[in-house]
Amino acid sequence: MVIDSNFYMSLALNEAWRYQGLTYPNPAVGALVLDRNGQILSIAAHKEANCAHAELLAVKEALLKLNPTLIFPKDPNRLHKFIIDNHNNLLKDSTIFVTLEPCNHQGKTPPCSKLLSSIKPKRVYIGSLEKNNIASGGAEYLKKEGIEVVSGVLKKECDLLIEPFLSWREGHFSFIKVAMSANGVLDGGVISSKESRELVHALRDKITTLAIGGNSVRIDRPTLDARMIYGRAPEVFIYSRQKEFDKNIALFGVKNRKVTISSNWDEFKSSNFGMIEAGVNLFNNCPSFTKWLLLFKSSKFKIGKTIQATKDYKLVWQGRNSEDSFGWYVKE
Amino acid sequence: MVIDSNFYMSLALNEAWRYQGLTYPNPAVGALVLDRNGQILSIAAHKEANCAHAELLAVKEALLKLNPTLIFPKDPNRLHKFIIDNHNNLLKDSTIFVTLEPCNHQGKTPPCSKLLSSIKPKRVYIGSLEKNNIASGGAEYLKKEGIEVVSGVLKKECDLLIEPFLSWREGHFSFIKVAMSANGVLDGGVISSKESRELVHALRDKITTLAIGGNSVRIDRPTLDARMIYGRAPEVFIYSRQKEFDKNIALFGVKNRKVTISSNWDEFKSSNFGMIEAGVNLFNNCPSFTKWLLLFKSSKFKIGKTIQATKDYKLVWQGRNSEDSFGWYVKE
Repeated sequence: MVIDSNFYMSLALNEAWRYQGLTYPNPAVGALVLDRNGQILSIAAHKEANCAHAELLAVKEALLKLNPTLIFPKDPNRLHKFIIDNHNNLLKDSTIFVTLEPCNHQGKTPPCSKLLSSIKPKRVYIGSLEKNNIASGGAEYLKKEGIEVVSGVLKKECDLLIEPFLSWREGHFSFIKVAMSANGVLDGGVISSKESRELVHALRDKITTLAIGGNSVRIDRPTLDARMIYGRAPEVFIYSRQKEFDKNIALFGVKNRKVTISSNWDEFKSSNFGMIEAGVNLFNNCPSFTKWLLLFKSSKFKIGKTIQATKDYKLVWQGRNSEDSFGWYVKE
Repeated sequence: MVIDSNFYMSLALNEAWRYQGLTYPNPAVGALVLDRNGQILSIAAHKEANCAHAELLAVKEALLKLNPTLIFPKDPNRLHKFIIDNHNNLLKDSTIFVTLEPCNHQGKTPPCSKLLSSIKPKRVYIGSLEKNNIASGGAEYLKKEGIEVVSGVLKKECDLLIEPFLSWREGHFSFIKVAMSANGVLDGGVISSKESRELVHALRDKITTLAIGGNSVRIDRPTLDARMIYGRAPEVFIYSRQKEFDKNIALFGVKNRKVTISSNWDEFKSSNFGMIEAGVNLFNNCPSFTKWLLLFKSSKFKIGKTIQATKDYKLVWQGRNSEDSFGWYVKE
C-alpha cells in the first residue's frame, strides 16, 4: 500500500462519509493533521451544523494530542479564538488535509482559512474547491499567507462527498433509505441494528420531509419521529393515491407536523432535504430525480419479501454500524 | 477519532484481511511500520505462501520509502539477508505493528524475529501470540534483544483473522462463497465484477476442494478452474444424491482433477481447505461444520431468485473490490 497524500485524504474522506446527511445544510467535510514529522495527530469530520467545522475539530484534537492538559471551550466561536491565541506554535510546519477548501468567510463560525493560517502549517492539501460561493477563496488566502497549497487531491471522491450539499444549495436533495437482511429481505420485523436505527433517527432529525408509502402507513402505523435520539420529527409525505387514512395512526399525532398525502412526487421535491423510507413496493415507485440510496444491510439471513427490480447503482462509500453494514449508492 | 496503537493495528488488520484464504497454508498477517517520529512508512500483508512474510514486506517498503534508490532482491530469503546487511540503521527506533507474533524459526523463509531485531525498532506491537507451534517464541526473542514488546493489541480481532489458519492446522477449514446482487438475487448471469471473479479464481487456486451443487453442474456446465488468474484447478466435490452426470460437462475435462460425487459432507471434510460455491439450493444444504461465509455483493439491483433462509451470521470484515462489496461473515 502506498502511503502518500491520497492515503491521508482517503482517511479524512472516510471519516467525513460517516456524517453524510447529518451536516445539513452544511457540506460533509473531513480533515486530518500530520505533525511536522509526518505523524498523524488527528482525523476529524464536521458532524452537525452550528458545531465545529472539520478543520477546527482536527486542529483542536491535534493540539490535545500534543498537550493533553489543554482545556478547550466547547462553543465553536470561542474554540476558534482560543486556538488562535493558545496554539503556541505546536502545529508549526504541520501538514493538513481537508476534503473541501477551507471556508473564507464569517458564517456561524469564523473562517477556517484564518484558523489554519494562524497555526502556520507547512502545507495544506485540499480535495474539492469551493466555487461561486460566499465561502470560497480559502486556498488563495492560505497561499497569500505563505502556506503551500495543493488542490485536487482525490478530487473526484471529494466532489462526490459534497454532491448532496450542492443539491441542497440548488433547492432539493433526496435519497432512498432501505434496510435489508444479508439476503435482501425487507419485511418481518426489525431488520437493522440499534445503531443503524439511531442513525436513521438522526437523519430524520435533519431532513425536511420523510416520504413513506401509503401501505406501510396503514399496516405498520408508524410514528416516524426521531425519538431514539430525542430529535425533531420531520414533515411527512405519504405517497398514496388513496387519500383516506385512520387519523389515529401515530404519525398524525405528532405536534406541529405537516403531513401531505399525494401521489405527485413534485410535492415532495419542493422540500429542501428529503428521505424516502422505502419498502418493497415504494422502492419501485420512487421518483427518478432521487439518485442516491442509503442501504443498511444486516448480517442475518431472514425469510421474507425481497425487492425485485433492475436498477444500476454504484457503491460510493461503505461503513460499519455495529453488526450492520451500510453504504451510500448513486444511480448510474 | 483516536490515533493510538489500536488505530495502527486496525490498518494492518484491514490490509491482512484482503488476503484471507490466499495465504494458505500460512496465516493471513498484516504489518505496519512507523518511523522514529511516528510517521507511517508502510502497511503490508502476507499475500501468498512462499512469498515474503508481512513483516519482511513492510520493512522492505519502509526502507524503500526512506531510500527510493534501493534495489531489493525478489526472493524472500535473499531479501531477508539483503535487509539485514543493508538497512543502514534507517529504521532504528521505529515502531512496528504486526497482527501475529513474528515467526521465530527457519521455515521456507528465515525467522522474522531475527529480521525485526536486526533493524533495532524501539517497540513492536503484536496482536495474537503464536501458541504451541514451532514458529512461536518471536516475542520472547525480541524482548531478549532489548526491544520493547506490547502484545494483545486488538487481540480478539487479530485472533479471528488467523482462525482459518488454526483450522487448517487442525485438519479442515471451509467456507461458503455466495455472490448476490444488491437486492439479494443470485441467478440470471454474471453477478459480480471482474475483480471479484478474479478473487474467486485466486481462491480456487489455493483451496484443496471446491464443493458445488449437482443442479448447478447440470444447468451451468461449469469448468470450475482458475483460468482468470492462470492458476491451478482444485478438486471438485459435487453435492448430489444422483450420481449420473454428463461427462462432457467442462469440469470433468480438467486434467488430473479428482471429482467426488456424493451427498455425504464428511467426504468434503476430509479436504484441508474447502470452498462451497453455493447457489440458492446448496446454501440451505451446507454442512453445519462450515461456519464461515464469503459474501460478494454487487451494487446493481436484479430480478431473480433469492436465498430464503434464517441464519445468524456476524460480519467480521468488509472491503471493496472495484464496484462490488465483499465481506467475511462467521456463523453465530
